[in-house]
Parts: sequence; C-alpha cells; structure tokens
Amino acid sequence: MKILILGGAGMVGRKLAERLAKDGQLGGQAISGLTLYDVVEAQKPAGVKFPVSVVAGDLPAPGETDKLVAAKPDVIFHLAAIVSGEAEQDFDKGYRINLTGTMNLFDSIRRAYDGAAKKPRVVFTSSIAVFGAPFPEKIPDEFFTTPLTSYGTQKAIGELLLADLTRKGMMDGVGIRLPTICVRPGKPNKAASGFFSNIMREPLAGHEAVLPVSEDVMHWHASPRAAVGFLLHAATIDGARLGARRNLSMPGLAVTVGQQIEALRKVAGEKVVKRIQRVPDPFVIEIVAGWPRNFETKRAIGLGFKGESSFEEIVRIHVEDELGGKIA
Amino acid sequence: MKILILGGAGMVGRKLAERLAKDGQLGGQAISGLTLYDVVEAQKPAGVKFPVSVVAGDLPAPGETDKLVAAKPDVIFHLAAIVSGEAEQDFDKGYRINLTGTMNLFDSIRRAYDGAAKKPRVVFTSSIAVFGAPFPEKIPDEFFTTPLTSYGTQKAIGELLLADLTRKGMMDGVGIRLPTICVRPGKPNKAASGFFSNIMREPLAGHEAVLPVSEDVMHWHASPRAAVGFLLHAATIDGARLGARRNLSMPGLAVTVGQQIEALRKVAGEKVVKRIQRVPDPFVIEIVAGWPRNFETKRAIGLGFKGESSFEEIVRIHVEDELGGKIA
Repeated sequence: MKILILGGAGMVGRKLAERLAKDGQLGGQAISGLTLYDVVEAQKPAGVKFPVSVVAGDLPAPGETDKLVAAKPDVIFHLAAIVSGEAEQDFDKGYRINLTGTMNLFDSIRRAYDGAAKKPRVVFTSSIAVFGAPFPEKIPDEFFTTPLTSYGTQKAIGELLLADLTRKGMMDGVGIRLPTICVRPGKPNKAASGFFSNIMREPLAGHEAVLPVSEDVMHWHASPRAAVGFLLHAATIDGARLGARRNLSMPGLAVTVGQQIEALRKVAGEKVVKRIQRVPDPFVIEIVAGWPRNFETKRAIGLGFKGESSFEEIVRIHVEDELGGKIA
Repeated sequence: MKILILGGAGMVGRKLAERLAKDGQLGGQAISGLTLYDVVEAQKPAGVKFPVSVVAGDLPAPGETDKLVAAKPDVIFHLAAIVSGEAEQDFDKGYRINLTGTMNLFDSIRRAYDGAAKKPRVVFTSSIAVFGAPFPEKIPDEFFTTPLTSYGTQKAIGELLLADLTRKGMMDGVGIRLPTICVRPGKPNKAASGFFSNIMREPLAGHEAVLPVSEDVMHWHASPRAAVGFLLHAATIDGARLGARRNLSMPGLAVTVGQQIEALRKVAGEKVVKRIQRVPDPFVIEIVAGWPRNFETKRAIGLGFKGESSFEEIVRIHVEDELGGKIA
C-alpha cells in the first residue's frame, strides 16, 4: 500500500507519518511506501521501516499535482492548507493554495486513475470553519455551511467537489471536519485560538501563559492523537457506510475554559494552574464569540470515529506524548 | 442604471429583459442601458426605449468576463448555466460553464470594481438542486447542501463564492434558489421534470400530454412571472437585511400532480384535463423520487420575496402571459 500525505510537514501530518511508521500498516495492509509533501521539506519519521520520499513544492503550480499522483498512491491524505488567518489576510494566496491546489489535486486524480479498477481513498481535512454564526446550541450534522472566512469557504468548496467526484466514481473521498486541536505542541501560537492550547502547554512546561477570555467561553476540542485516529479511520472505513454524504463533523469535546483549567488542576496541581495569567483581550473575546462551540456528531460517532470523553484525558495525552510523562 | 444579463437568451432571461423593457426602471432608477449575453444571440425585447446590446460568446473563455464587466454595470444578473441533465452527462462541459464561468465572472468583477465606491449588485440564480435526498418533510432555511448532481454542486460552490466575495466587500451578491418553473412555455421538454409543465401547457393549447408519474408526486413550483419577480426583488433589496447569509431558497408552492390537475380542471374544464394520458415511466418515477418536494422559506418570505399561493394562480398566469387569455 502506497500512501501520500500532502501537508506532511505540518503538526498533524507529522504525527500521522509517525503513527504510520510505527504501525507499518494501514487497515491490515503493509505500507510499501510513503511520500511526504509540503511547501517545506518534511522530516522522515524516526525508525521507519518502509521507504519514505520527502518532496517540497508549490501545490497549485502547473503540473505539480500530476507529478504527485503519478505513482498512483492507494491512500492520499490532503492536509495541505494556508491557515485561516493568513487566508483571510491574503485573499489571492488563500484561494490559490486552498482552492486551486485542491481543485488541481482532484483533477489530477481523476485523470491519473481514469479506467483504474480501484480509485484512491482521498482523506480531506476540512474544518469547523465551514460553519458561521449564529449557531444553534449544538450544531447538528445537517446544519448548513455559511462560512465567515475565506478559509472556511475554501474548505466548504473542497467538501462539495470531493463529494461530487466520489459520487461520479472518479475517486473515493472522505472529508473530515476537525475540531480545534488541543493541546497543540510547539511554540505559543499567535492565532486567536492559540490560547486554548497555550494555557495548558505552557504551565505544564513550567512557563506562564496568558488567558485573554473569560472562563465561561466554551469551545470544541480534540487531541492531536484523536486527530490522527480520525485520519486513520477515514482512510480505512468502508465508503458504502457513508453513502453520498461524504463529509463529516468529527466528534470533539465541548468544554469551557474553566473546565479546561479544572482538568489541568486535577492532572498537574495548583502550582501549575497558578502559571495562568488573566489578561482580557477585547479583540480575541470578539473573535471567539463568533466561533462554533458545540456539535452533535451523531453520524461520525455512529461510524466509529472516536474523540475524547474528558478534558483530563486531553491533558494526559499531552503529558504522555509530548512531555514524556513529566510535568514541570 | 446599467444592467447586464448573463443567460439573456434563456426562458427566464428573456422574460426578465421584457419586464425591464416594459418598466424602464429598476428600483426607482431609470435604466440607461441593457446588455444581453448568451451563447447564442438573445432577442431584443419588443418596444424597448433604452439602448440594448446583444452579445453572444463563450462565458468561460479567457478574457470574456473581463470584457463583459468592463462597462461596470450597476446590476448583473447571472443566469447563465448548462442545465442539470447536460452537466451530468458532460462532466467537463458542466464544470467549465457552470463553475469556471462563474469563478471567472466573480474574479473579473473583483478586479473591475477594485477601489470603486459602489460595488455591483450580482444576482445569481442558484437551484433547489443544491439539496440532495434524504430530506425532511419541509426543507428548512438552515438545511445543508449535499447535491446529488454536478449541476447542484456547481451551484452550491457559486453560492459560497458569492457569499465570500460579498463578505469581503468585493461585490454585493444575492443568490436565489429558484423552484421548478411551471408552467414553462415553449416546446415539450425532455428533461425529467418536463412533465410538470407539459401536462398543463399542452392540454391548454389543445394537445395531448403524457403524465409519467402517479398523482401523489409532490413538487415545488413557481411561475415564470414569480421568477422574474424574485430576480427584481433580489436586485433591489437592501443587502444589509440579508447579513452574511446571502443565499436564499425562494418561496414556491408545494403541490401534488393531482392538485395540479385539479387546478387545471377549475381553470379550463374537464375537456382540457382529458388530454392528459397516464403512461407510467419507471425511469422518471425513480428520478423524481430523489427530488426536493417542499420547503420552509421563512427568510425569503420575511424579506419580501413572493411566490404563488395556489396552483390555479399558476395556471391562470400561463393563460394570461402565454396564451393571450385563450384556452384551446
């Protein structure tokens, strides 16, 4: 089984590659090769036992996606995207990478596998940004997509194209709308959503962190480990179980910032919680007010996608996977 | 006020042009010029008192949409599309006209009006084909778009782009999802939906017509006159009333075929109704089963869009507008 990851240098792409390297198989089939593609060179996962190619390039450049699918991978993970803030600031760049890149990819797939008995499973990471306020208290599976960002628009269009090409038998796509990934490893992030992770990660590592919103702000979370689980399940699920509706909101955990802090206290104690400083930021408060906060994800749960059931679990996953079990 | 109609040779485009010619104004402003664009040459409306240009061309051809918006019309009606059946049979042609054409148009608008104080009102005709079965009994305004045709996919993408460019202040778009237009004038149509009109129009003109489904089939209708009314209202409504949600399902009338026939009987008598022959067609029966049949359109009604309130009214409109009041 040959696998291609677009966006292989990103946080989720890297964790997915590490998991595939560790497992050596996907859906019971041995992995014979993995290509990691991104705008910068991705790192090969440590200890990998199958061949890994690392390719850097510009996804929407003419001919680029033809080259990427020429080897006819069995599974293609399309995680490549300009993030929300950048797509909003640079309209042309966002559309070029997130829309033209995706359209070119799907078009190349259609042509490369024309006449092939088996079409590739294409797993596309969409986003809860396809939804725009006002929302019902819990966003149901059949809620309409009215994005309030260009990024959300580009993802919603990708979902529609994925469903249409799949319906026409040109590829075998599954789109998954990821919750906000928490606790996000790495440096503190200046994205408006960064604080959800910052206030967990930094105190656990012995650093102070700023909380810009009130404790009653609710948001929708899944761990990086759960995100990788969603991708693997989306890559291997029987497509017939999805029918024509190929895009799914992934299960997450709706918790308030207060509940996040309470979970941190249980896992790491009061000393760690005291590293959170409350500095209200009206700019962040206003942005966050327009975000989805809670979902029903009956279909995804029924189809076997698994998120976390407590925020303590999310904190413990971070401590295990990123801190080697040690709290500062 | 300068107006551009893309799809000016189609049935709805022609009726819109005739109405604008008759009114001489739109939203209280005198019309100074009208351009009718289509793949074939549109007819100038009779008795028109303002200048009309007729242009034939290939919408997605390079540079074509730049030329069309160069004169900076105040209102652009974008009705141009390959119909559902053809877009389904010819994947490339459907995407080229319905998606590339629309994307090129929006891109040309963005560039032509860059820096302009006033952006053009762009009225885009979408379709109830953006929805795919299974449906709730009445499709609510917040129901998700999961098209089961490439045509519906292309329209849903047009809606998303229209909303995003409007949100970014690049144009001033309103998307309207038209019900099935009934009674459609002209020749009997081989489209699967053609019979809804055929069984009214042909008997009224003294001809026989075939009914391929049972009388309990329900569908969603508006007259050509109502469709023109939707377009004019969409062209003149205060955009602030729509907020960020710029795409609306238009009000229609949900009636069964049996109710259609009953209305025909009331308007035209038993002699006319007897011209309908029942010849069940399993192929048509199956297609029609997947179509939307009823909607809630609270938003559109609240915003002043007006459909018909009885099928008798729809039959009478056809007799008035197409038959000069005379039933054969």
